[in-house]
Amino acid sequence: MYLLNKIKNKLQGNYIKRSWPGLINAYKQYLPVSSKTPIISLNEGNTPLIFSESLSNLIGSNTKVYLKYDGLNPTGSFKDRGMTMAISKAKEEGCQAVICASTGNTSASAAAYASRGKLKSYVLIPDGYVAQGKLAQALMYGAEIISIKGNFDKALEIVRDLSTKYPITLVNSVNPYRIQGQKTAAFEIVDDLGFAPEWLCIPMGNAGNITAYWMGFKEYSKIKRNLKLPIMMGFQSEGSAPLVKNIIVQDPETIATAIRIGNPVNREKAKIVKKESKGDFQSVTDEDIIKAYKKLAEEGIFCEPASAASVAGLIKNKNRIKKGSTIVCVLTGNGLKDPDCAIKNNDAIFRNNVEPSLKEITKILKY
Amino acid sequence: MYLLNKIKNKLQGNYIKRSWPGLINAYKQYLPVSSKTPIISLNEGNTPLIFSESLSNLIGSNTKVYLKYDGLNPTGSFKDRGMTMAISKAKEEGCQAVICASTGNTSASAAAYASRGKLKSYVLIPDGYVAQGKLAQALMYGAEIISIKGNFDKALEIVRDLSTKYPITLVNSVNPYRIQGQKTAAFEIVDDLGFAPEWLCIPMGNAGNITAYWMGFKEYSKIKRNLKLPIMMGFQSEGSAPLVKNIIVQDPETIATAIRIGNPVNREKAKIVKKESKGDFQSVTDEDIIKAYKKLAEEGIFCEPASAASVAGLIKNKNRIKKGSTIVCVLTGNGLKDPDCAIKNNDAIFRNNVEPSLKEITKILKY
Repeated sequence: MYLLNKIKNKLQGNYIKRSWPGLINAYKQYLPVSSKTPIISLNEGNTPLIFSESLSNLIGSNTKVYLKYDGLNPTGSFKDRGMTMAISKAKEEGCQAVICASTGNTSASAAAYASRGKLKSYVLIPDGYVAQGKLAQALMYGAEIISIKGNFDKALEIVRDLSTKYPITLVNSVNPYRIQGQKTAAFEIVDDLGFAPEWLCIPMGNAGNITAYWMGFKEYSKIKRNLKLPIMMGFQSEGSAPLVKNIIVQDPETIATAIRIGNPVNREKAKIVKKESKGDFQSVTDEDIIKAYKKLAEEGIFCEPASAASVAGLIKNKNRIKKGSTIVCVLTGNGLKDPDCAIKNNDAIFRNNVEPSLKEITKILKY
Repeated sequence: MYLLNKIKNKLQGNYIKRSWPGLINAYKQYLPVSSKTPIISLNEGNTPLIFSESLSNLIGSNTKVYLKYDGLNPTGSFKDRGMTMAISKAKEEGCQAVICASTGNTSASAAAYASRGKLKSYVLIPDGYVAQGKLAQALMYGAEIISIKGNFDKALEIVRDLSTKYPITLVNSVNPYRIQGQKTAAFEIVDDLGFAPEWLCIPMGNAGNITAYWMGFKEYSKIKRNLKLPIMMGFQSEGSAPLVKNIIVQDPETIATAIRIGNPVNREKAKIVKKESKGDFQSVTDEDIIKAYKKLAEEGIFCEPASAASVAGLIKNKNRIKKGSTIVCVLTGNGLKDPDCAIKNNDAIFRNNVEPSLKEITKILKY
């Protein structure tokens, strides 16, 4: 009866809402989980794929540009996709605590999922890192923050060591379950569009996400016959472009802090993605990034500066795009993660000390 | 064939993802839109209904507590539900600009949707309001901010006047389409649960949201037979409780800034909701709110302080709840909207100046 009603409603054109069960439950047949895995979820995933009219027009040639807005995950970034997997598996393996070295989105996500799974979480950060704002989420979700006398590399070395010696799970990018969870974003894009895009444009830091997307598209293509794989276009900041230049960048510098990484963990995997997909890695300037960041806001989408690198990259390749292509740009994080950047980089008009009279304001409004 | 596959998959227990078209497209048969309405959407709505194990246990008696996390809307608050309607209708009516008096979530949402709909947006704020942080989104989305020599009431008076004299649409709570969009949250809850909860706990500022939810539940009960309506429980802050005390509060004060409203626009409508639903309006202290705010973070959910009023209220009524009830608490906004509150109100351990040795850190981790 329920099914009959569903079919009837479908024919009448009414939308039937389906409750989203979180990405592990939605895609469990494609993930390394079993009925024994305790699923620690905040209903992550199922983020909107938003059509961008202005970018489609800008590129022209009947291109359709969509934005995968992963900043609408529970803690505000794509990291939640990997973290629901990493924490669920840590829990399954009987782990009591998780650890990471991070000053940003990873620590927020790790702390949130650990807390939900009733695991203890530790976050190691380099000393002198005083901006608590960036850590507001990790603090709130109850992580224990350990600020060490040393730099980020030292922090990463220690958490790696600790996780091999003690029953504490490392949830930095090296955790293999992270990529498993992240690949579901590719599934979602295919499910939403009905096919894979011609191009996928994505920011690259540690290059875990581009690796995960490619894994997702490839796996789905084995199940869904006739799925044509996308060309993978990875973008880095000019001041932090180890993959573009094929070097280690000692002091990476960019406004896009979420991709300010000098020696990506997934360097070799990313090279394979580039080769297999016939893709490309390119750099964009901070200026390009801010332009794209503003352009997205004009369409009502507020993302992290790092996210805008995918759109800056797309714009840079305007003339290389085949007529009628469908393109997806991945927006990895929510703009609310970095309000300072918005305050410093906007073109809004702010009028102070205006007389509170109808006449005065009518004049401003030009009526 | 597609339908057959769907049925087959359903029987096999595989989840089939459906693309969410935004709340107007999903529920258009229940909304005042026609084929002529240009739909200005950011795929808002379809926010997660998250089961809370710890709150369910705290209340006991087989109670099931769910959290409707509306902070995962595109601009980070429930306001997007009303704004997609308000802006779409403004556009349909040929309007070129929208205006509101707001220092918070309304201005962010209005600016985002206006921008997406290619309408100009103006935000009036009281003079001396210098904290740009709260306005980061409105600035970024390109609103023109007009700071007047006068208080909030004066700003509201001016925007009301302007919108009656000129072709500029007022998108503050008085805009009737706002409530129409907001009522879809009730539809989503019923669609997700399969029924309406026994209690709906919700924070009240202008009382537009409680009015909208009640409208939604009532309308859905006409379509879905046997839908039992919920008891509507509205919560205000003790320092800003005009509906609880049935007075006008001259200088409302609370940490929950999003519900710091002394004279709610929807006072009379809210009274009807209370009466019809056999509900109650109660106040909770700022201390209660912060306790609930922390409790939610322990479960991995970071919300605005105002949102936590619904959970604080639920906890206060622990002993009034019937055995086996299903309860939904509405979380209206994202915690990232107010990071300062998180930094000031968390119990996290922050260790400084730690020696970067495995031995030292192992000691901290108690291995």
